[in-house]
Amino acid sequence: MKAEALNDSDDIEIAGDREIRIRQELTLVALGKRPADRSLRVGRLLDVHSRTWREDQEIVIHGRRIAWVGPAGTFPGEVRERFHEPDLMAIPGLGEVHKHIESSHITPEWEAALVVPRGNTWTCEASHEFSNVNGARNLEFWLEARRRGSPMKIFPLPGSAVPPTAYEHGGGWYGYDEQAAFLKQTLMVPGLDEVMDWPAVWNPENPSYHRLWGMIQATFERRGVVEGHAAGLRDMDSINAFAAAGLASDHEAWTPEEFWEKLAHGLFMELRVHSMPDVIKGLLERGLQDWSQIAFATDDRSASDTLRLGATDHNVRLAIENGLAPEIAIQAVTINPARHMRLTPWVGSIAPGRYADVVLLSDLQSFRIEKVWADGRQASEGTRYLLPVPRIEWPEWATNTINIGRTLTAEDFAIRAEAGRSTMNAALLRPFHWTDEFITRELPVVDGQVARDPDHNVTKFAIVDRFSGNAGVSRMFWLGCGPRTPDTALACSVAHDKHNIWVVGSSDEAMATAVNALAESGGGWALVREGKLVATVAYEVGGLMSCRSAEDLHADMEKLYAEGALVDWMYEPTFQPRWHPGFPERLAFATLTCAPWRWVLVAPTPEAPEGLVNVQNGATHPVVW
Amino acid sequence: MKAEALNDSDDIEIAGDREIRIRQELTLVALGKRPADRSLRVGRLLDVHSRTWREDQEIVIHGRRIAWVGPAGTFPGEVRERFHEPDLMAIPGLGEVHKHIESSHITPEWEAALVVPRGNTWTCEASHEFSNVNGARNLEFWLEARRRGSPMKIFPLPGSAVPPTAYEHGGGWYGYDEQAAFLKQTLMVPGLDEVMDWPAVWNPENPSYHRLWGMIQATFERRGVVEGHAAGLRDMDSINAFAAAGLASDHEAWTPEEFWEKLAHGLFMELRVHSMPDVIKGLLERGLQDWSQIAFATDDRSASDTLRLGATDHNVRLAIENGLAPEIAIQAVTINPARHMRLTPWVGSIAPGRYADVVLLSDLQSFRIEKVWADGRQASEGTRYLLPVPRIEWPEWATNTINIGRTLTAEDFAIRAEAGRSTMNAALLRPFHWTDEFITRELPVVDGQVARDPDHNVTKFAIVDRFSGNAGVSRMFWLGCGPRTPDTALACSVAHDKHNIWVVGSSDEAMATAVNALAESGGGWALVREGKLVATVAYEVGGLMSCRSAEDLHADMEKLYAEGALVDWMYEPTFQPRWHPGFPERLAFATLTCAPWRWVLVAPTPEAPEGLVNVQNGATHPVVW
Repeated sequence: MKAEALNDSDDIEIAGDREIRIRQELTLVALGKRPADRSLRVGRLLDVHSRTWREDQEIVIHGRRIAWVGPAGTFPGEVRERFHEPDLMAIPGLGEVHKHIESSHITPEWEAALVVPRGNTWTCEASHEFSNVNGARNLEFWLEARRRGSPMKIFPLPGSAVPPTAYEHGGGWYGYDEQAAFLKQTLMVPGLDEVMDWPAVWNPENPSYHRLWGMIQATFERRGVVEGHAAGLRDMDSINAFAAAGLASDHEAWTPEEFWEKLAHGLFMELRVHSMPDVIKGLLERGLQDWSQIAFATDDRSASDTLRLGATDHNVRLAIENGLAPEIAIQAVTINPARHMRLTPWVGSIAPGRYADVVLLSDLQSFRIEKVWADGRQASEGTRYLLPVPRIEWPEWATNTINIGRTLTAEDFAIRAEAGRSTMNAALLRPFHWTDEFITRELPVVDGQVARDPDHNVTKFAIVDRFSGNAGVSRMFWLGCGPRTPDTALACSVAHDKHNIWVVGSSDEAMATAVNALAESGGGWALVREGKLVATVAYEVGGLMSCRSAEDLHADMEKLYAEGALVDWMYEPTFQPRWHPGFPERLAFATLTCAPWRWVLVAPTPEAPEGLVNVQNGATHPVVW
Repeated sequence: MKAEALNDSDDIEIAGDREIRIRQELTLVALGKRPADRSLRVGRLLDVHSRTWREDQEIVIHGRRIAWVGPAGTFPGEVRERFHEPDLMAIPGLGEVHKHIESSHITPEWEAALVVPRGNTWTCEASHEFSNVNGARNLEFWLEARRRGSPMKIFPLPGSAVPPTAYEHGGGWYGYDEQAAFLKQTLMVPGLDEVMDWPAVWNPENPSYHRLWGMIQATFERRGVVEGHAAGLRDMDSINAFAAAGLASDHEAWTPEEFWEKLAHGLFMELRVHSMPDVIKGLLERGLQDWSQIAFATDDRSASDTLRLGATDHNVRLAIENGLAPEIAIQAVTINPARHMRLTPWVGSIAPGRYADVVLLSDLQSFRIEKVWADGRQASEGTRYLLPVPRIEWPEWATNTINIGRTLTAEDFAIRAEAGRSTMNAALLRPFHWTDEFITRELPVVDGQVARDPDHNVTKFAIVDRFSGNAGVSRMFWLGCGPRTPDTALACSVAHDKHNIWVVGSSDEAMATAVNALAESGGGWALVREGKLVATVAYEVGGLMSCRSAEDLHADMEKLYAEGALVDWMYEPTFQPRWHPGFPERLAFATLTCAPWRWVLVAPTPEAPEGLVNVQNGATHPVVW
């Protein structure tokens, strides 16, 4: 094999046959028997295995990989090109153990341009967002950017939540056969993405029981990792049951007590920023002796937030600010997640055989990244990405995913009253309403329709099926969200996790206008204010992402936020830090159907024709009566 | 599924379909929705994930697994039978990350009876000893004891060293297809056993190159672990090359410097007792910050030595004696090896879903084991094993493995001189002679044969092919080993790693008598002193092991040692701690052909008809000239 072959097509996607050819060559390079492509000499280097620093080290690179690491000046072989950063500290490329790149809302090649300069060179992609839109093309979608030259390693984990519950349909359906095929297809798949429908795991009567356990079985059979999601499971028995089920991790612990209990029961704990300050301080206070079963996770973060806060680097910085030793914080985004995901041969440390991904810091305590190398080349300078972003014309199967098949009208959102009634009872939900019962309110009947009650913070919320082509609509009244401003509506095709279209509005006409506009743009956001379409943001890929830079998307989002700021938004407090006053961007997460949700609104389905269903037990209820 | 089904046949061998049924049931038990079989309440319990102790905990058990762990008295469900050990400390069942059970010289069911009371409840079996005897039956052999009721979990890793080098034949041959089939056949196989033929890994010209890389490829493809063996590879370039090749571990580091360098290059380090004192003290002195990439390994230890020293418990005790915190030492035989081998769903911690293997200590610092639970039941009291040892009639394929097909005579061991010569040059080896050149000596010719020179510590050593049925014999002169006593010979069918028969003797007649006696007993040891057979020890299973208790075997070994003590054994110092004066038991390891060996004697082979071959480069040489 020629050395050149390693640089390009041969070392993009891990596969057994190519892997051994790459390693055969690397072995000879390490012994000095073949020339190396380049080397990077650094002032010091963090060995994440021993958690100690080594001074004046040279990293010898061949193709995209590390062939040799050792004291500068002692490598025995020829090196074609040498680089020297005497004042910088080298740490391994940072890894995301659990991230939905979809939540950046930019396509993978642009995600790389955004996050690689922030240190993030590999990501375990929790892929159930795109999977729920086009399940059949999931791996193809996630592997394409790298095939086209992107240096970021995306390891897609097919989503267990496809569909999220048995009460949602369309877009994708994964069971035993699908998961077995994914794991067989490519070694880029480390396992099964977060198992989050807890009622479907513990309860044999749940209609998703066999589908979910089938995916778990297929993952065990191919020695994959079964990722968990144990939101709201905080009591001792549920934590035990979750671990007993074979779910290997959780990223939903919100307090130090819960975090520690899950850790102690054998879950690999993935810590997100919104609970990080409390959890890290709590773990330090309580005297945690071993951090090897802990990683930091981004989960969901928009491109706008990443521009403002950072990517994985933000997670590390926040951990350090809360008192964690920087070296331990670095382990939590390098060796720890790599080991958990069984990816140590490829990522997680600066060691031979791994991809040559190196983050160069000028200051440890402030975690100041100066340069990032990825796949053996310098990829960034400061936050500037230096490599070309591949121009991908995402095909029809990725861009034509809003299939509502007709123009919606106000009538689609109307909720008819029974004849002769002047009021009716309505089932209400709030965003992040996790109690066992929905809320009941009496609402006025106007012109034969049950009406909103803006004085009491009640507006209308709907889900439009965007998969079947029938544009089935579920609608009900929601509390404490949506516009009070008349004839105003906000629609979005990001509706975790099924990603139908949600729309909230003060008039049915505005709701129809917003959804029609959104469908026109291939997905994204549409804001109608006082009867006029004032802003759209296109997420033309899967209705979830846009194929453009973070900066470009952010500019559009800023316009949306500016128009949104002119709307009077209702608000009632519910679960913090999930729900805030102002522009209700987080409604995209208020449509989740996993634990700890109970009553939710889904698109019309045979199991719940009006869409209101309790996902813990399958109960349904009319939206008005 | 009925709970009973979990207790017996369903939970013996890990398989995806059974695994999910077991976990479905465990989940319901953890939630208190199904009765649990029993519980074990303990004074304190070590959580190896956080490396902290928890007081007064209850371990709820169902079938062979743990369903629930938490504060005593808080489990919500019914428990059929409760046990309480208020004065004892619970730690997880201890695991062997790299052990050749063959080196205990007792069969797996008897191994369990020996080591389970010493804490060792699971073992990654480095199976190339039996594989080299009967490769086709390897998994069947290792899984049989458990299928018949043994509580010890044996995870066999098929040996890369089958055959050890391209210059040895018979017994077994493993390449890509075989390894792919093993990994597909059962999840009990975590990966590929120690890749130890380093010249065959780095050098594309080596005749074993494609076979070995094929096994590595098959292991990557099934997400298995590729174990390494980097004996003598201590220079920076070799360590780098070894890691670059994708070999994930080493258990052959002999000094703290070497150990640290390998650790820093990404190898998971498996530490054995003979280097443990130096290495642990050295790592502590140098300030190692993280022990998570370190496990302790027994590798080879005879039943006699285990009776005297201990099993895994000895390794832990020795680490503590050398200054390591007991909790870290315990991690090195529980969570660390389980994580490295990707077996955390099943072993390595006291957590739900794992096998209910618990070691109960009365004293931490002295690591005093009072009781061991395995598979959810008490298995020992002190060093007494309480469970029945399954009576296995090992079949013909396991017991009929010494196939020499004829009676050997003195003539088989003669080394002819060239006509008319009064002396000849001879190539000599010593045990553990690892230099690039063999030793040359001039030896007398007597009656047309090249003769021994006992005055200069030179005797004769031979390898008898025990696989082909032709009983081909290679013979040469060796230095500093074997009997000076006349007409005396020692033969053994344990000859790492190919396990032909080696014999060393002061006369050709005695050598023939010893080998014939050994063949008669189905393998093991035979000692002929002054012309008479004075002791045999039968290793009737594979010529490596005996189907009887450690105590019974030890009694026979004592007789062998007693007779051996009456022999005058030559000695020349070579590598310590491998080679000692006295009864040359360790000649069984002097026939290795992996790195760092160079010149070795193998059975006659087309590549080396006289058997003397340099395994680093394939060079051959006449044994006399």
